[in-house]
Amino acid sequence: MKHFSQKDIDTLSKIYRLNLINSATGYKSAQLVGSVSSEGNENLAVFSSIVHLGSNPALIGMILRPTTVPRHTYANMKATGVFTLNAIHESQIEDAHHTSASYPESISEFDKTQLKVERKKNFLAPFVKDSPIQMACKYLNEYHIKENDTLLIVGSIEDLYVKDSILLEDGWIQLDLGGIVTINGLDGYAIPKLQERFPYARPKDE
Amino acid sequence: MKHFSQKDIDTLSKIYRLNLINSATGYKSAQLVGSVSSEGNENLAVFSSIVHLGSNPALIGMILRPTTVPRHTYANMKATGVFTLNAIHESQIEDAHHTSASYPESISEFDKTQLKVERKKNFLAPFVKDSPIQMACKYLNEYHIKENDTLLIVGSIEDLYVKDSILLEDGWIQLDLGGIVTINGLDGYAIPKLQERFPYARPKDE
Repeated sequence: MKHFSQKDIDTLSKIYRLNLINSATGYKSAQLVGSVSSEGNENLAVFSSIVHLGSNPALIGMILRPTTVPRHTYANMKATGVFTLNAIHESQIEDAHHTSASYPESISEFDKTQLKVERKKNFLAPFVKDSPIQMACKYLNEYHIKENDTLLIVGSIEDLYVKDSILLEDGWIQLDLGGIVTINGLDGYAIPKLQERFPYARPKDE
Repeated sequence: MKHFSQKDIDTLSKIYRLNLINSATGYKSAQLVGSVSSEGNENLAVFSSIVHLGSNPALIGMILRPTTVPRHTYANMKATGVFTLNAIHESQIEDAHHTSASYPESISEFDKTQLKVERKKNFLAPFVKDSPIQMACKYLNEYHIKENDTLLIVGSIEDLYVKDSILLEDGWIQLDLGGIVTINGLDGYAIPKLQERFPYARPKDE
């Protein structure tokens, strides 16, 4: 195996280190985050840092670095208090990745890609049409992580929309039936196939 | 699409809600966390809540609920200050899932599964043999998330070991070459195949 000590990592070139450390923790969720500014400018940005925080209440977390791209998402969610999460379908990966390009605040990524806005009820932030799982979220709080000056954003799930064909009887969403992708590092998109689902694990008697 | 309002979610049965909300945020990283108590009892537990926090310095985050299983991992990392992260290979999923069974603190999950301990240098916590990516981590800090009484643990990567055949020239780890799995919800294990890797996204001129 190739070994990197902490000192090795610290002295790698920036791009090599970004690639290595971003892929070392394994597969990440792939979400398009929809938001809107107080002036009505819509924004869409790909994120791989959305995490499950808890189911009761239903909460999500998001890690972001407020001083770098995609800063519009953060400014918008602070200004309006809301955002959407949209799972990425395998047919959307090229457009999803393109939302990471640095556009001025007045340019909507919906106008620069084939991704289409979908509106639901009176929710202020835009959803992504044809995304198999969509969530309307409310910004609740943020925690400053002093070790590297990032933020953990805490959001609540206000509304959840799931494609009927991927929602099983017990509430489990079979993600591969929806063609939902996962992210490898900064720029790799992979398509998983379910291998096995296990029952609740109980200790073995011996 | 099936719609769940926040009120719907709050009134679902516990199991249905756990399945639904745990799978709604998409694919999660799959890691075996190795730790050891001050008495020398080894512990291994599957986690799907490890996130990339930053690459410079190289930091990881982990969400956990200290009052429920797997509490041994938390107690051990607090007591010794160290733990390991081990990517799960597709041949290890059954044993990996079994580490979620509730064993007493004196029982090592290494003795209840086919997973084997690997020791590296003088690092106190055990690694998982044949895991394609292994990390020696140091506990740095924790943040209490008051919205649902969980913790964000912040850890540093002290040593990183990567199987040679999956490490590309630019530092990117191609996870599917290593047979590394991802988690769908609480109990589903999926195997991704890389679809595409994109160049750095730049704005389109128009």
